[in-house]
Amino acid sequence: MKSFTEYLTFTMPARVGFVNITARVAEAVRQSGVREGLVLVNAMHITASVFINDDESGLHEDYRKWLEQLAPFDPSPARYRHNATGEDNADAHLKRQVMGREVVVAVTNGKLDFGPWEQIFYGEFDGNRPKRVLVKVIGE
Amino acid sequence: MKSFTEYLTFTMPARVGFVNITARVAEAVRQSGVREGLVLVNAMHITASVFINDDESGLHEDYRKWLEQLAPFDPSPARYRHNATGEDNADAHLKRQVMGREVVVAVTNGKLDFGPWEQIFYGEFDGNRPKRVLVKVIGE
Amino acid sequence: MKSFTEYLTFTMPARVGFVNITARVAEAVRQSGVREGLVLVNAMHITASVFINDDESGLHEDYRKWLEQLAPFDPSPARYRHNATGEDNADAHLKRQVMGREVVVAVTNGKLDFGPWEQIFYGEFDGNRPKRVLVKVIGE
Repeated sequence: MKSFTEYLTFTMPARVGFVNITARVAEAVRQSGVREGLVLVNAMHITASVFINDDESGLHEDYRKWLEQLAPFDPSPARYRHNATGEDNADAHLKRQVMGREVVVAVTNGKLDFGPWEQIFYGEFDGNRPKRVLVKVIGE
Repeated sequence: MKSFTEYLTFTMPARVGFVNITARVAEAVRQSGVREGLVLVNAMHITASVFINDDESGLHEDYRKWLEQLAPFDPSPARYRHNATGEDNADAHLKRQVMGREVVVAVTNGKLDFGPWEQIFYGEFDGNRPKRVLVKVIGE
Repeated sequence: MKSFTEYLTFTMPARVGFVNITARVAEAVRQSGVREGLVLVNAMHITASVFINDDESGLHEDYRKWLEQLAPFDPSPARYRHNATGEDNADAHLKRQVMGREVVVAVTNGKLDFGPWEQIFYGEFDGNRPKRVLVKVIGE
């Protein structure tokens, strides 16, 4: 069994944002030499997500607005107890649960085995600082 | 390490619906010959889900109604920017994030290693056309 | 390829609760002898979750309150059709979808390959009875 591990770092210049990381993951799969297997891609921080959806800027605005409705940013501890610790990012911990921590993608014939519109995104909900994504490929 | 890949196709005769695909996944595991490993099952389309829950029709109605409250169908671009592209399915992209893209299930002694009520479902949020699910088994 | 399977049992003394199971998963990884691979950790029951987030009690209160807003407990079949079956836990099936069924974690150099704050939790939404979590390690 082969394995390959890579860490990607992203510093988003805003509190919330989405970046397409598909090419970076595809390159890790190429470097791994794995032809048949699985690749795990996960946020290593708990106020960020890795998810698969469409690379369409209107949809990303919809995600942003919808997540803000489901779990509004509010630094006060009156709404979120977590913010009594001195943090202001409780909303980001909630948003990340809706969007998910990780994706697992099949590797077939040495490539990401994707449907026509699948693209991998890093989703940031508490940005303005460097945060890491782990890519782990296993297979043969 | 063994691996096995299968693609299942579903054409749901409605916008939203759920179908139990557990037997299809179990059959792929059997064909793979894997005794100990993992099976990934994911929607290959970004307006659909694969998830594990109960095979109970009342619960499926509850999911449908609840998802409609969280992310209502609305073809107008006034609510969803994505629908300015000519699509009407922004709500389906949101519903899919709540229900998830994929499941990873343990294979133990050649079988899906499931609790008493676990069943795998394909969840469709923008149906009336053929869409695919990937099943990838790896192990020994 | 090596594999290792363990079942953990939790009886939460309340309807809803969260317990940090990171040390239990780390011990399973150690016992597996796997140096490079993946570990799957999933709830075997469909009204419970396994998720990764922060070990901070205020945040856990925020999750509890937020999930109660998104999918309120209500035993009556008027709100939830599932409860017409004699169950009262439809809300727990919904909460579990928001928090997720499973996590997949990379194993690197024989350890859980985690960011600084990542911790694994069992999340219970219909407790007061024993329920199981599956830990499956594969790799070399």
